[in-house]
Amino acid sequence: MRVAIVGHGNLGRGVEYALAAAPDMSASAIFTRRDPASIEPVFPDTPVHHFDELADFAGKVDVVIACGGSKSDLPEQTPQLAAHFNVVDSFDTHAKVPAHFAAVDAAARSAGTLSLISAGWDPGLFSINRVLAGAVLPQGSTYTFWGTGVSQGHSDAVRRIPGVAAAVQYTRPRQDAIDQVRSGQEVAGGPGQFHERECFVVLAEGADAEAVREAIVTMPDYFEPYPTTVHFISAAEFAAEHSGMPHGGHVIHSARTGEGNLHSIEFSLELGSNPEFTASVLVAYARAVGRMAARGVSGAITPFDVTPAELSPLSAQELRAQFL
Amino acid sequence: MRVAIVGHGNLGRGVEYALAAAPDMSASAIFTRRDPASIEPVFPDTPVHHFDELADFAGKVDVVIACGGSKSDLPEQTPQLAAHFNVVDSFDTHAKVPAHFAAVDAAARSAGTLSLISAGWDPGLFSINRVLAGAVLPQGSTYTFWGTGVSQGHSDAVRRIPGVAAAVQYTRPRQDAIDQVRSGQEVAGGPGQFHERECFVVLAEGADAEAVREAIVTMPDYFEPYPTTVHFISAAEFAAEHSGMPHGGHVIHSARTGEGNLHSIEFSLELGSNPEFTASVLVAYARAVGRMAARGVSGAITPFDVTPAELSPLSAQELRAQFL
Repeated sequence: MRVAIVGHGNLGRGVEYALAAAPDMSASAIFTRRDPASIEPVFPDTPVHHFDELADFAGKVDVVIACGGSKSDLPEQTPQLAAHFNVVDSFDTHAKVPAHFAAVDAAARSAGTLSLISAGWDPGLFSINRVLAGAVLPQGSTYTFWGTGVSQGHSDAVRRIPGVAAAVQYTRPRQDAIDQVRSGQEVAGGPGQFHERECFVVLAEGADAEAVREAIVTMPDYFEPYPTTVHFISAAEFAAEHSGMPHGGHVIHSARTGEGNLHSIEFSLELGSNPEFTASVLVAYARAVGRMAARGVSGAITPFDVTPAELSPLSAQELRAQFL
Repeated sequence: MRVAIVGHGNLGRGVEYALAAAPDMSASAIFTRRDPASIEPVFPDTPVHHFDELADFAGKVDVVIACGGSKSDLPEQTPQLAAHFNVVDSFDTHAKVPAHFAAVDAAARSAGTLSLISAGWDPGLFSINRVLAGAVLPQGSTYTFWGTGVSQGHSDAVRRIPGVAAAVQYTRPRQDAIDQVRSGQEVAGGPGQFHERECFVVLAEGADAEAVREAIVTMPDYFEPYPTTVHFISAAEFAAEHSGMPHGGHVIHSARTGEGNLHSIEFSLELGSNPEFTASVLVAYARAVGRMAARGVSGAITPFDVTPAELSPLSAQELRAQFL
């Protein structure tokens, strides 16, 4: 299966790695809005072209993976790409999913192509686990916890505080909340009941640590409602220990059946690199999209519309014999 | 959706509970090979008929859930039922899945019905998580741990030892093995590296505890290769603390991507009642089978062939807006 990568940030680079690990897929080319000569592919053999040349590849590519951002790239790009290609994207603005779905569906239907939106882990693998758990145990409650992981938005907010030279913010699930949910209790209260925030800050020369800490922990919405810890560290420690992009989380569903037997279903991820894992999910869904499109399925779909078998490189017989 | 329950042991009773919890399904009737008058349904309104009357219900039932055992009931019953009905079963003899699939597929194809085999949690939810994890991260290794849970076969083996009045055996994953797998290490070695066994035994009057313990821990295959603990308890404690049917386990897949970033995907179940949870899974798959059969799908399928959306009582629009 021939796959084109549109956009070559951390996610696009992760897709290059994931395609190399897939036994049945390969990267046809990378397409960029930047100067192609400025792009360094992970694998030097991967051709790089300008985005404007993409139309020339119609019929030479089975699936396009759109690796842009959800804020401004994908709402425009995915429908545009769907007019010529089968597409997978990682659109993750939960509130705008219905509008994005409708736009992509219209473009894909009129072109007879297939597009899958919102692949990744949340939305994506977490979403299908929420649906699965609710379908099996409709009586219960589902909770999603995020982290431990870097929140780009919160890290940016800390970096804008005067006196901060560098900063990273980790979101962590509160262990007491996880324990309550696992034991079948309902957890009430605001967002600070579920997550806590930990900041690692390098101070600018002469900055007042106490003033920076105060500015962080009192920041409305971002930090004020959460238990927040601030650590001041050296630039050297920051560079050595905090340059990764870890993330993860838990989807936990608890419910009682019969005369009161408690059950808990939990799906957990611990990710060394958020973009590389997201890319791996995109590639698995690209496999499914290529196969479903070849069977004549068209329009927009989501991870809710894909069977486990479609995601796997193995045959139905192999899956039944080895994995059932 | 009208569902018939074939067999009324613990699993069939669990299906009654699960159908009552499903907003869109109901139990049409229970069918039994015993005297129908001897069956006490969970809900007194559920009609009970003899198995031989089932053929009269063709056209009046959307899906039949076969609640018999995998050893002798299902290999015969599922193909027989598939000649007249859409069927879901929980066939769980891993090694015989290909033969069972072929027999059910032949019967269902020639009748134009749809049968899904091997629903439950293993095979079932664990199976789809093994496939999902391997599709997303093809580089890694997948490990399945079972427990803490009651093993019927091992409990029976202990009960056959002279001097044992009552006994139950719990299989537990070894925490050290789980920790190794989560951290991306390969775990080598025999079955005793992965699981340990804990027995609670009520001694018959005058029995020699040390002889019973020795007979348990040296039993080949069943206990000898595993770290095994034996507790002797009173009949009263046994009745109070060990009459449940808990189970569960973990599917853990770890892999590295890119320049070596480690990821771990884990699906865990903690089940207060193994049969009630299995029944809840069967009912969700019965929903999918009813819908897919109505669309004209026929033959045999497994959980690998079902989308998350088909399992859920909610519409595609609701799923996208609320769960993605």
